[in-house]
Amino acid sequence: MIKTDILIIGAGPTGLFAVFEAGLLQLKCHLIDALPQAGGQCSEIYPKKPIYDIPGFPEVLAGDLVDNLMEQIKPFQPGFTLGERAETIEKLDDGSFIVTTNKGTKHHAPVVAIAGGLGSFEPRKPLLENLEKYEDNGVAYIIKEPEVYRDKKVLIAGGGDSALDWSIFLADVAKEVTLVHRRNEFRGALDSVEKVQQLKNEGKINLITPAEVVALKGENRLEKVTVKDTSTSEETDVEVDDFIPLFGLSPKLGPISNWGLEIEKNAIKVDNTYDYQTNIPGIYAIGDVNTYPGKLKLILCGFHEATLMCQSAYQKIHPDKKYVMKYTTVGGVTGFDGSKKEAPKAVVKAID
Amino acid sequence: MIKTDILIIGAGPTGLFAVFEAGLLQLKCHLIDALPQAGGQCSEIYPKKPIYDIPGFPEVLAGDLVDNLMEQIKPFQPGFTLGERAETIEKLDDGSFIVTTNKGTKHHAPVVAIAGGLGSFEPRKPLLENLEKYEDNGVAYIIKEPEVYRDKKVLIAGGGDSALDWSIFLADVAKEVTLVHRRNEFRGALDSVEKVQQLKNEGKINLITPAEVVALKGENRLEKVTVKDTSTSEETDVEVDDFIPLFGLSPKLGPISNWGLEIEKNAIKVDNTYDYQTNIPGIYAIGDVNTYPGKLKLILCGFHEATLMCQSAYQKIHPDKKYVMKYTTVGGVTGFDGSKKEAPKAVVKAID
Repeated sequence: MIKTDILIIGAGPTGLFAVFEAGLLQLKCHLIDALPQAGGQCSEIYPKKPIYDIPGFPEVLAGDLVDNLMEQIKPFQPGFTLGERAETIEKLDDGSFIVTTNKGTKHHAPVVAIAGGLGSFEPRKPLLENLEKYEDNGVAYIIKEPEVYRDKKVLIAGGGDSALDWSIFLADVAKEVTLVHRRNEFRGALDSVEKVQQLKNEGKINLITPAEVVALKGENRLEKVTVKDTSTSEETDVEVDDFIPLFGLSPKLGPISNWGLEIEKNAIKVDNTYDYQTNIPGIYAIGDVNTYPGKLKLILCGFHEATLMCQSAYQKIHPDKKYVMKYTTVGGVTGFDGSKKEAPKAVVKAID
Repeated sequence: MIKTDILIIGAGPTGLFAVFEAGLLQLKCHLIDALPQAGGQCSEIYPKKPIYDIPGFPEVLAGDLVDNLMEQIKPFQPGFTLGERAETIEKLDDGSFIVTTNKGTKHHAPVVAIAGGLGSFEPRKPLLENLEKYEDNGVAYIIKEPEVYRDKKVLIAGGGDSALDWSIFLADVAKEVTLVHRRNEFRGALDSVEKVQQLKNEGKINLITPAEVVALKGENRLEKVTVKDTSTSEETDVEVDDFIPLFGLSPKLGPISNWGLEIEKNAIKVDNTYDYQTNIPGIYAIGDVNTYPGKLKLILCGFHEATLMCQSAYQKIHPDKKYVMKYTTVGGVTGFDGSKKEAPKAVVKAID
């Protein structure tokens, strides 16, 4: 059982900054995230994209912002349970919570802060009959281990960067790569589009456009997909071992939506008049995952919400203590690792 | 008459960032500040001190934060009225406001955002009879133009950096510099304390400690100050042309407190459930100057408040338009100066 003061669900920028504000209050944090690394969308979806509206940064790459936040919270030694999704929550008699992940890891804390962003990112699936029958049995939405496709006949569907990049990569691995897209035009990095053109010219990628997969066939395992030419409506069966639709990721609130929290428009309602607490005392929601009148899904708003949440969590954890805020410029930052950062102090010295 | 969309009173970090968020909404801003430069306390009081709790900055000097914010808002070409204090406000029939400074500069805007921090910083004055009689007539609290003191007999009182640094500086300018402090110990940069010790040893600064000024004398102008040795209670008259008490700055809400705004604990009450508006529609208060349940006087909270204020201001200024928020990562930043910053776009390209 992992024990901590504030259990943060979601390790995006808001969740990470909460560790810092909690640390200033001498509260320890542990973060759970379904993704294999910290940073949320910033790391997973757009690490190389610039953000222009983080205060004090005329421009910062999303990945660099995450690196900076990781550096900023380092003195407060957060714990991480990564690559696991928070699945169930149980409220104990003393008001504390046990959160269990899909892999069975258990976490115990008096306060839970949900910083889940738009939710877990899950692959968009094509609307095909029998799709579930073939899942993990010839159909996959994420390529975890490319070696699985060595010497196989693979059909990829999609028109974006993922479809382009994996077609290029698997052209060297698989026996046969077919790329199906509903338009002739692909949307992605110029390099990738040109490379696919070249591989197609060399016969290393079969390109079928404009077309879409309309049926899956196979006795126990996927054996064929039916591809329909959308300009002529002609249908052809293509023999494949694997069908990989890469239609992007779509955020889902996921298991959290069954925790008894008040939900509105796929977000968790919170009390913005004070501390961003949900309808369940002790559970807060901060950042893009919450909603309240006037809510803006901006990283900088998550920072503010995380800060006020920590003050409220402190009162909950230490009902008998009174916290007096000290500015970091005055009081410095004292890490749990024994580190101390502070402004140079003035001397007090007699002149005689 | 200066005309703008949002008139911001106070050019500290919160006021500056409001310019950016307003700019994203195509609203123009103009800032008034009593200080001669932008940046508020960060520039005036502690430009070289590190701040540790700005999200994404493990450490940033206050002055550098201001520089970064100035760079970030540059595309939105804010106007500045610096070195003037917002004095009066008048609400016109159409709901817009005219704000006039102590120097008579008039500003007209449909929305006013007070980002006044802790207020205007005003010098702490010694408790002396007749003090006002000699103000600008031998007594000054701020040294604006050191040349005024050339070949004059100057008495400085105080024990901090200002008293030390000006004593050092004027030792080369004035005919005579006397430094009076109620303790033998001075509090300041080690360099400054040592330099004063050296100048005292060389006879270039007269040091009187522990002592305080207890009376001012002079027919029409200041002629003498009475200095009391606080260890012996002995009083001595010192002939001076100028007496400069440097006892630090103390924030005062100032004229704003007469604008009819609801005030609580020297701060302006706002509606934190939605948009940080005050009791007067069209006037908002953001950053350290406001108060609401759970308020924290932190720069990062000011950034959030500024952002929500701008959304509300937009609705007020354009009641007929609906604003659809675009992430800067997606939509980029289009400056009023014609500049455009945006993430590299994906290409859309056919493969044939």
